[in-house]
Amino acid sequence: MLVLGIDPGTALIGFGLVSKEGGKLTAVEHGVIRTPAGMELALRLVQISESVKELLQRYQPDAVAVEELFFHRNVKTFSSVSQARGALILTVAQLGIKVFEYTPLQVKQAVVGYGKAEKDQVQKMVKSILKMDKVVRPDDAADALAIAICHIHSYRGEVGL
Amino acid sequence: MLVLGIDPGTALIGFGLVSKEGGKLTAVEHGVIRTPAGMELALRLVQISESVKELLQRYQPDAVAVEELFFHRNVKTFSSVSQARGALILTVAQLGIKVFEYTPLQVKQAVVGYGKAEKDQVQKMVKSILKMDKVVRPDDAADALAIAICHIHSYRGEVGL
Repeated sequence: MLVLGIDPGTALIGFGLVSKEGGKLTAVEHGVIRTPAGMELALRLVQISESVKELLQRYQPDAVAVEELFFHRNVKTFSSVSQARGALILTVAQLGIKVFEYTPLQVKQAVVGYGKAEKDQVQKMVKSILKMDKVVRPDDAADALAIAICHIHSYRGEVGL
Repeated sequence: MLVLGIDPGTALIGFGLVSKEGGKLTAVEHGVIRTPAGMELALRLVQISESVKELLQRYQPDAVAVEELFFHRNVKTFSSVSQARGALILTVAQLGIKVFEYTPLQVKQAVVGYGKAEKDQVQKMVKSILKMDKVVRPDDAADALAIAICHIHSYRGEVGL
């Protein structure tokens, strides 16, 4: 089972591919998709879509897990990140790959076992679960790996993958 | 000059095509794209994208004008409409068609001449400007025609179209 986790954004989108084979979880790839500051929204969405499509075609994951957005007071940011999220979910669904959505609380619960865990606790658990040498940077990539782990944990035993 | 105006939504998306020839504005087509209530977001975005692509390919507009979203208190609605907006802007931009964004205030200003105009004033002005027999229903289609008119008025004299 190979899962692509995505931490949505506009300027910076984290991605993390986690495989599960015989109960063992491994980080296959992780990183961030960047779009230039000041680039107009439509072109930004095209660039995000192309980068995500490239990842999907290269790795052909079984599922994509995307974090749900937490509303904060900056309406403009929330709006542009939501639009980027819509563009990337569309891109995944157009390739016939199933999209799963998890709240930040579900991700923390699945990775740390505690829904109100701090960011650095999540990052340390990601490192530990995936047996990595060091904590993943930037945060966005670590979060994306956490989202992929959350999906794998949520599916444990349910579909026999 | 042919402009497609879009009033974004998830369950209901208004569209309106307005042509300008020799100073005369005409409604070429208008209506709504509907997606079933309860359909999951990813499939909804795919359906919205396909319907918009069909319109673009059939009419080949010179530009697409999309209304900016006004934030209201329902975060869930704002989030899903924003995601649908991102998906449709991506679809337009992927076909190489330029996207223009206008605030509700700009649309009212352009159509009625008063940024705080009421909804029914906008609808009556749309009917009058486009010399239509009656007020367009549903509202979403009338709003989409207003957005297209706004773009045409904003471009008057600027690009010589």
